[in-house]
Amino acid sequence: MRQLLRVQNFTVSSDGFGTGEHQSRERPFGHAEPEELFAWAGATASWPNRADAAGSRGLDDYFTRDYGRNIGAEIMGRNKFGPQRGPWPDHAWQGWWGDEPPFHTPVFVMTHHKRPSFTLYDTTFHFVGGDPASVLAQAREAARGKDVRLGGGPTVVREFLDAGLVDSLHVAVHPVKLGAGVRLWESPDELLDRFHLDVVPSPSGVTHHVFWRR
Amino acid sequence: MRQLLRVQNFTVSSDGFGTGEHQSRERPFGHAEPEELFAWAGATASWPNRADAAGSRGLDDYFTRDYGRNIGAEIMGRNKFGPQRGPWPDHAWQGWWGDEPPFHTPVFVMTHHKRPSFTLYDTTFHFVGGDPASVLAQAREAARGKDVRLGGGPTVVREFLDAGLVDSLHVAVHPVKLGAGVRLWESPDELLDRFHLDVVPSPSGVTHHVFWRR
Repeated sequence: MRQLLRVQNFTVSSDGFGTGEHQSRERPFGHAEPEELFAWAGATASWPNRADAAGSRGLDDYFTRDYGRNIGAEIMGRNKFGPQRGPWPDHAWQGWWGDEPPFHTPVFVMTHHKRPSFTLYDTTFHFVGGDPASVLAQAREAARGKDVRLGGGPTVVREFLDAGLVDSLHVAVHPVKLGAGVRLWESPDELLDRFHLDVVPSPSGVTHHVFWRR
Repeated sequence: MRQLLRVQNFTVSSDGFGTGEHQSRERPFGHAEPEELFAWAGATASWPNRADAAGSRGLDDYFTRDYGRNIGAEIMGRNKFGPQRGPWPDHAWQGWWGDEPPFHTPVFVMTHHKRPSFTLYDTTFHFVGGDPASVLAQAREAARGKDVRLGGGPTVVREFLDAGLVDSLHVAVHPVKLGAGVRLWESPDELLDRFHLDVVPSPSGVTHHVFWRR
């Protein structure tokens, strides 16, 4: 069975931004409010960060419960991992996620600046340079036959889309404008030459966009 | 984690029938055409009976790929298992599914007529009497902590709904009338006193109904 590269539960504003501007240690999404952007996912029973047994089991839950299904590795950009730019000042920063990151697989952080791998609970972070195809080859090997999730941010998703490496892409469009930040797209129509698209409005207010390769 | 009882990918006609009338060895759904009723599922990449690597990966595929996720046992009615009525004439009939049934877990067939268990590939069929609650207790034990799927037909789904045992229910409504057969409901509204409901039209033509307990 072929190993797919999948984007899952990637949420953008109605004007196409995946994150705001002015990222900092206190604000991983810059001026955007992640609690608002991801409210649709946080309300579901299968949200990976949920601690209780509550939550909805409707349409949106199909998307959150698919997040980890058959995933063996994740690729993320450096700005999803942390707010630093340039060479690492030290190795104290270990991501935004505390002692138990929600990935449970090897994670490949794309950066030009070397840093040793480290493990938190059941997630090992590797820091890798190189082009998207070579990073994907490393992630596929680590995934041991399972699929690879492309975790974002928007810049990294664009790079892999431009390189023709993405097999399926789920984007939830939140019905609020951000006005500025880092853009995934001007319009989902940009991808229609290469992907099929199902557009699915959810009762929660987001509109799910499900793309798969033509 | 609680073990859920889940109905998955159950398909009914627009007038509420889950199967037609006049079931026979040649026609498991009676006068209904399963190829039409389940066309929405058969077109997806994750349809359990698919032999090739093709198929759609849009909205409908989220439903077919959820079919086996975290399922540890199935409960089905006798008429899902076969066309016989009354005492078993012999034990030659082993279901409609050939040498590799798509269940991959223990299956509990509800019947008043005793028959020894048997195994086909990685599916073991058990034949059990008793009320829905006692059958569910047996299936939960066999599922070893995973959820139990309630496989149908419509009569069995109704029995478990009436006993208040169903936690979540996914019904795809096919946009064609059957006119006769075995009914799941007159209208999905019958369940709204006990369940939340998301109604999700699919580009394939079916309308997914996702119910979860209030």
